[in-house]
Amino acid sequence: MQYLVGVDIGGTNIKLALVDKKANLRGKRTFSTTSFKGKTALINGIVSQIENLISSQGLKKKGIIGIGIGAPGAVDIRTGTVHYLTNIPDWREVPLGTILKKRLGIPVFVDNDVNVMALGEVYFGAGKGAVNMLCITLGTGVGGGLILDGKLYRGSSYAAGEFGHVPINIDGPRCNCGSWACVEAYVGNSYIVKGVVADIRSGQKTLITKLVKGDLSKITPEIISEAERKNDKFAKKVWMDVGNKVGIGLAGVVNLLNMEKIVIGGGVAEAGKVLFDSIKKAIKLRAMKLPAKTVKVVKAKLGYDSGLIGAATLVLYELEKENVSKN
Amino acid sequence: MQYLVGVDIGGTNIKLALVDKKANLRGKRTFSTTSFKGKTALINGIVSQIENLISSQGLKKKGIIGIGIGAPGAVDIRTGTVHYLTNIPDWREVPLGTILKKRLGIPVFVDNDVNVMALGEVYFGAGKGAVNMLCITLGTGVGGGLILDGKLYRGSSYAAGEFGHVPINIDGPRCNCGSWACVEAYVGNSYIVKGVVADIRSGQKTLITKLVKGDLSKITPEIISEAERKNDKFAKKVWMDVGNKVGIGLAGVVNLLNMEKIVIGGGVAEAGKVLFDSIKKAIKLRAMKLPAKTVKVVKAKLGYDSGLIGAATLVLYELEKENVSKN
Repeated sequence: MQYLVGVDIGGTNIKLALVDKKANLRGKRTFSTTSFKGKTALINGIVSQIENLISSQGLKKKGIIGIGIGAPGAVDIRTGTVHYLTNIPDWREVPLGTILKKRLGIPVFVDNDVNVMALGEVYFGAGKGAVNMLCITLGTGVGGGLILDGKLYRGSSYAAGEFGHVPINIDGPRCNCGSWACVEAYVGNSYIVKGVVADIRSGQKTLITKLVKGDLSKITPEIISEAERKNDKFAKKVWMDVGNKVGIGLAGVVNLLNMEKIVIGGGVAEAGKVLFDSIKKAIKLRAMKLPAKTVKVVKAKLGYDSGLIGAATLVLYELEKENVSKN
Repeated sequence: MQYLVGVDIGGTNIKLALVDKKANLRGKRTFSTTSFKGKTALINGIVSQIENLISSQGLKKKGIIGIGIGAPGAVDIRTGTVHYLTNIPDWREVPLGTILKKRLGIPVFVDNDVNVMALGEVYFGAGKGAVNMLCITLGTGVGGGLILDGKLYRGSSYAAGEFGHVPINIDGPRCNCGSWACVEAYVGNSYIVKGVVADIRSGQKTLITKLVKGDLSKITPEIISEAERKNDKFAKKVWMDVGNKVGIGLAGVVNLLNMEKIVIGGGVAEAGKVLFDSIKKAIKLRAMKLPAKTVKVVKAKLGYDSGLIGAATLVLYELEKENVSKN
């Protein structure tokens, strides 16, 4: 059996695992990004974790087909350069792919975390077989990855897919990206929570207040969902409103890209039916008839391991491409 | 010298011409779409016009590489089926490509009019050499065509590219497509004119009123531009506002697709510098730094003949693809 190594680099944790060609995981481990002080220590940490992962499973490096890495932000895929890592201050424009390839002697591919998730979902998850697909994550940020004409679409400077920064209003709340009224500025975790807190402070009655025992700083999307499951009307309205905002943004993408599938993952997607119904309703209302009829909105399937599986899938994807261009 | 035939089907006129492989036109002719009563008469008209065009230029059918047709709306490219033609009431789901191929014995390719324009601009015009590009037309409607990863991107039901129906506001004016607050609902010709008329009726002083001698029904985008060139402040504001709306829509596409080029054509694009400056300003303000830096906004180059040249380019494009897949 041949294995891939998947590496999922996040702001808080780095996860890695051996992954077989059917997306089964083996030897998964997690270590804290923040426990490494600086760029060099982190790179050394990744190298020794990978070596250790391989040997601890009784394997040798030559049994590894390749290493796939998902990292936040735009990635220059030619050198696997990761521009920034939030918790590693001296990390600037690091050609992680080139470095790891040299140190480990195994092919390494690096791409944006949502791009690799999109690949994972289209190979093994909810997007299986889709030719044109948008995969989005709803969480702290709102990310996106595009499969177009059966290939990962990266754009002219490898920065494509930023669904979270499609504006859905002329005026509106300021967004982290420097613009305003972006999808993320309405439905990013902190914006949702901020809105709920403001409403409660203005006298809104809701079960949420009781669930956090009056401590509004404890409100999270999970708490809002808990209240919604207990039939709290306000919580339901929150998710319907989030779904409407996401759906307006998606309606524009549906008209522009006429995809057959939209795969939605991330913590906020756990809000479930009330959210998805509202998203679908907005698309039906706002997108043109033909593309609206063509598109299916589904929940991501790979869940918590989507980053790892996606990273490993990147290796499969890149090696397939190389084989096609050789023939 | 081998020739292509380009056919540009519009609501009012059908244009056709012989086109060589360098996009030079020969024997261009125009006939009125509306002079044909019904589907069969129109198809016969197209067939005889094409035959006549070829023979009148001293050519034979076997000297024609192929016929390319641009038609309004989504086109099922497999059979060249044009779903609707506004002025031909009994035109419903007509497989124009299949019919013409049979009648004329020459390869026929049919696609959406803005898709073929995008191909024309990327082969011979302002988009020359672009790998990722959005081509839009600003006129009665707002259309779009996408070149992604060097290929025409058509979407899962051949309906992609509808930039005009990307919503840029949560609430807003009703759009022809049934939705509201779409780009087109702000910047389609009739919406621009309607806004100007309303402002003048509410007491707005502008040179426009004088230019139409008080007959507000005579206001057109050209008149607004004439006033703007004569330094009318209100007319300038109109174009700045149109540019801002177009730019907000484009900022979203830039973040989503990270193209290197946006090509803008259509009558409204003639508003020139004031409009383009305003579009660029909105993109710079609203799009993310990296993709905003990557994209260039330019005016379409092929002008009045872009439909014809684009239609002929479709033949070149499709035959190139066939050759690639044969090898």
